[in-house]
Amino acid sequence: MATLPADLTDMAGVAIKEATKHGKMIATAESCTGGLISSCLTAAAGSSTAFLCGFVTYANEAKTRLLGVPVDAISEFGAVSDIVAAAMAEGALAHSGADMAVAVTGVAGPGGGTADKPVGLVFLSLAETGEDAVVKRYVFAGTRDDVRRSTVGAALELILSRLREFDDEKNDEKTEA
Amino acid sequence: MATLPADLTDMAGVAIKEATKHGKMIATAESCTGGLISSCLTAAAGSSTAFLCGFVTYANEAKTRLLGVPVDAISEFGAVSDIVAAAMAEGALAHSGADMAVAVTGVAGPGGGTADKPVGLVFLSLAETGEDAVVKRYVFAGTRDDVRRSTVGAALELILSRLREFDDEKNDEKTEA
Repeated sequence: MATLPADLTDMAGVAIKEATKHGKMIATAESCTGGLISSCLTAAAGSSTAFLCGFVTYANEAKTRLLGVPVDAISEFGAVSDIVAAAMAEGALAHSGADMAVAVTGVAGPGGGTADKPVGLVFLSLAETGEDAVVKRYVFAGTRDDVRRSTVGAALELILSRLREFDDEKNDEKTEA
Repeated sequence: MATLPADLTDMAGVAIKEATKHGKMIATAESCTGGLISSCLTAAAGSSTAFLCGFVTYANEAKTRLLGVPVDAISEFGAVSDIVAAAMAEGALAHSGADMAVAVTGVAGPGGGTADKPVGLVFLSLAETGEDAVVKRYVFAGTRDDVRRSTVGAALELILSRLREFDDEKNDEKTEA
């Protein structure tokens, strides 16, 4: 049996192909998923054409040290917040030289949930050179493992949907031409 | 079904407990495994007591940029070499502030193998503050997925066996007292 679920590695494989086609190098910045997104992106051979590097910034100290997330942002908004997710994605971009970075921070559980920030709350951010970072908020159900797995799926979906916009842009250009 | 194999996450859970007991913070630097080691180390809740951060330096450029691996070392000895594995582990230590870092570089395949460096060749390195980095060489059999999975197992085993030496050292101290 494969080490990682086939539905995730299949999606990651498509993302790598799409990114390669559009000449985009990807970086990741992961907190609660702990490297699962980069594991999936590198599952297939040849992923070095589009995957540059990943930061697994599990501890808050690492978010600041490796990605330059401001200490104030973490203390004011919390590590699991839209602000920190965007700062992680932008930091991954700035510290890697990639074209596109996806970042994730969330409460995977089973502990650590509050009324404001329940277990399953996850912020995903996508940053690109020359663009403002986009942030999406999710609340996933299930166990710690379920939350991590759903987060990986959502992150890969976010990368893929952005890459497919480049296809559309290219098609639009052709239509206009 | 769990996202990651239970044999690996169980071993990772024991490593986190042992590291916590000895007050050691762990960092990872992964090339061919792409974040699988850090994924396993963060699979259980509470891993923040001993897991600090991970670097997924898949591209050679990332090994240099994120970990400070000398470009000359990569061009002279190759990215898959004992020298680069040790430089990755030492770089992970220096760039994270962890007490202990494990690094892996290998030829996961199916392509990329040569007579000198066949598919399945993997170098693991363990670095600790104040100690010379240790490097181990392996040749794993099987598919790309098999090689990645075997590498994660060996990396976790390497961390665990080192952490268990601290137990022995403590016991020796007791015997001597």
